[in-house]
Amino acid sequence: MSLQLNKSEKSEHLYMEVYHYYRNLILEQRLTPGSKMPSLRKCAQELRLSRTTIENAYLQLAADGYIISKAQSGYYVTDIAQRQVVPSSLKNSKSTLYQYDFASSGVDRESFRFDLWRRYIKSALRQDERLLSYGEPQGEADFRQALCEYIRERRNILCSADDIVVGAGVQSLLHILCPLVLDKKTVSFPTPSFIQGSTVFSDYGFEVRYRNKDSGVIYVSPAHMTKWGEIMPVSRRLELIRYAAQNQSLIIEDDFENEFVYLQKPTPSLFGLAGGQGVVYIGSFSRLLLPSIRISFMVLPSVLKEAYQQKAASYNQTASKAEQIALCQFIRDGHLAAQTRKLKRLYSVKLRQLLSAVQTVFGNTSRIQIGSAGTSLALTLSVPFSGEELKKRAAAESLRIQILKDAPGEVTVILSCSSMREQDFLPACRLLKSIC
Amino acid sequence: MSLQLNKSEKSEHLYMEVYHYYRNLILEQRLTPGSKMPSLRKCAQELRLSRTTIENAYLQLAADGYIISKAQSGYYVTDIAQRQVVPSSLKNSKSTLYQYDFASSGVDRESFRFDLWRRYIKSALRQDERLLSYGEPQGEADFRQALCEYIRERRNILCSADDIVVGAGVQSLLHILCPLVLDKKTVSFPTPSFIQGSTVFSDYGFEVRYRNKDSGVIYVSPAHMTKWGEIMPVSRRLELIRYAAQNQSLIIEDDFENEFVYLQKPTPSLFGLAGGQGVVYIGSFSRLLLPSIRISFMVLPSVLKEAYQQKAASYNQTASKAEQIALCQFIRDGHLAAQTRKLKRLYSVKLRQLLSAVQTVFGNTSRIQIGSAGTSLALTLSVPFSGEELKKRAAAESLRIQILKDAPGEVTVILSCSSMREQDFLPACRLLKSIC
Repeated sequence: MSLQLNKSEKSEHLYMEVYHYYRNLILEQRLTPGSKMPSLRKCAQELRLSRTTIENAYLQLAADGYIISKAQSGYYVTDIAQRQVVPSSLKNSKSTLYQYDFASSGVDRESFRFDLWRRYIKSALRQDERLLSYGEPQGEADFRQALCEYIRERRNILCSADDIVVGAGVQSLLHILCPLVLDKKTVSFPTPSFIQGSTVFSDYGFEVRYRNKDSGVIYVSPAHMTKWGEIMPVSRRLELIRYAAQNQSLIIEDDFENEFVYLQKPTPSLFGLAGGQGVVYIGSFSRLLLPSIRISFMVLPSVLKEAYQQKAASYNQTASKAEQIALCQFIRDGHLAAQTRKLKRLYSVKLRQLLSAVQTVFGNTSRIQIGSAGTSLALTLSVPFSGEELKKRAAAESLRIQILKDAPGEVTVILSCSSMREQDFLPACRLLKSIC
Repeated sequence: MSLQLNKSEKSEHLYMEVYHYYRNLILEQRLTPGSKMPSLRKCAQELRLSRTTIENAYLQLAADGYIISKAQSGYYVTDIAQRQVVPSSLKNSKSTLYQYDFASSGVDRESFRFDLWRRYIKSALRQDERLLSYGEPQGEADFRQALCEYIRERRNILCSADDIVVGAGVQSLLHILCPLVLDKKTVSFPTPSFIQGSTVFSDYGFEVRYRNKDSGVIYVSPAHMTKWGEIMPVSRRLELIRYAAQNQSLIIEDDFENEFVYLQKPTPSLFGLAGGQGVVYIGSFSRLLLPSIRISFMVLPSVLKEAYQQKAASYNQTASKAEQIALCQFIRDGHLAAQTRKLKRLYSVKLRQLLSAVQTVFGNTSRIQIGSAGTSLALTLSVPFSGEELKKRAAAESLRIQILKDAPGEVTVILSCSSMREQDFLPACRLLKSIC
């Protein structure tokens, strides 16, 4: 073997070098399907690396489908090179497929402190006794207490840990909430785009409408009213609360991206403004931590608390207990607040830079919409073909975009800055212009 | 400080000694509420232990509510001693509250290789790129492939990874499945005891019945027909499949505890017997690994596959991506099969020992029911009071039992061997007898 490794690199990078070395051998079919990989021991000896480094590389290769382990035998090369398909893990992280990805809702990859998060998970996994039992249906008590203090401080929401229900994502929470409010019969969403939400309501027999405040349930994301980050002004929030109270409608406040309100002071939560009456507050962490961590929570108003308590034991907890324990301590140690500050600063700068790149490239030939929050802007282009066609042309150039609106002769695309690198904004915009 | 530590112990045990030392100081209020804990550095110096050991002890104390960390300041003693309440983590792992716990459905604590599982989670958390994006709605592709091979080998189920849907527990799967089969209108369960299942169906408007095979959906757990582990004979399985096919009913086969069939050969799955027609197969890992790992899966029959595919993108994945990645490799490396063999051997011995202890203590004064699977037996006692009263009396003696049936003058309790130690069977049975 002739793998040249720079020994001075950290061991975390070393294993990726080993990974890429073997991946290339496999893709070029210099290691043929079915052939056995060298044993960990042998490979470590030959490359003069630690067994752990080799093992990590092999695990990554296995996870990506290049090799497969057979019990008590070792690792074997799969037929991935012959199948000529993209391994599933690459299919997921679309950014590795596209040179430029304006459509990803992932987190900026430089911003997340993996080392830190790993340390908290490791600590959580050391609590053997706790992990041997089922989780509390409502969510771990200490985690709910930490959430309670966090939203009191940051969103001015006064509640007790008893009012909080934890679940694996917003849908898991709606699966508990919907059956409690079946008598409301109708639900209104701001736009048809939040399919994950409307699907759950329609599964439970609700009539789903849009922008209709005469509905039994009014679902809003006040910090994310449009894809380009418009936020709901306080006057409209108060009006909505009054109107809903008069009609005995329930408001569901999905506080998505409230952390990324840049151009004005953070607006008070509906839950806080309504004094906790008639509003369910939903918070989540997918935009702050890793999208792959499935933890959300809701705060129930007193009117729903009793109904929930009666059924609480009928629902198993969906969120991972280890991740709840880890996140609890992560919050208590101030890391969530720090991460939020960091991301807010970062996205605020990135979004301005993206805007400037779009203005430079498209100038007056297009319409730009940008709100005071979020990580995206909307760009309306005059093109003689459909949005689908534009998307296809972009993909052919390794550029990923998301179509918001497709009118004759005019297509609106959403450009997100969140997982793009700043130096890519200008070339990506130029590329987009070249195919219009 | 005068903490005497045995330095020869492993570091995992060291931190628990530090933990218990401080816990006692706090509970005895020798460290008063609000007082600051020594810094990690100082404490490590004084006790001549590593900072990591002290940190682990502090994290555990914090997780259990004895101390609380304040950002950029340190750890402080809570008012837990004054509140005189049981910390939440102790409330969860009920076995630490009871001397003997016959009611726990946890896993035998000696059997689970925490070190091994931690290693797999650690590997999974090293896949930064993969964790930065959302998980696949249907479950990670490589994990579904591994599941597919696992159930082909062990349950004779032929399917492709495309037929498998992953979710955070059986309820999360039912939340996806129910909306696809709303036209079935009625569902039958073997007993009213699986509340988590019946709740989801009734939330979707199904009429829930018991042991009524003229229902649109028939939910069965063939390896867990009763709490005391009776299994469904093959003849009845075939009859059920025929009957359901005639009536166009859908069978949901929850293969709970199929791994723990001791007294006869493992019975074929309904899914396998029916050739994958008209049966949804559900598998989970809570009895094999940690109950706190929330991962289950279902195999859809071809008749439901298209309906699911049309809606698949409307449901976010609920199971943790890191845990899916870890479990995938854990299965591929043969550890799940090994853990299953180990637990099966262990529970088979423990259940026999429990039976012998019950026979020794209760002799002819009671009725014992025991099946050919599972980890429990049913014991019917003649008592002049109610089941609730018996449970209360048991709890007063630090003995936890679960009541199955409460008839006048006769109470049936379920005794589970799974998380009890073998040497406790006899004394626990004697204690139970003494309060009857």
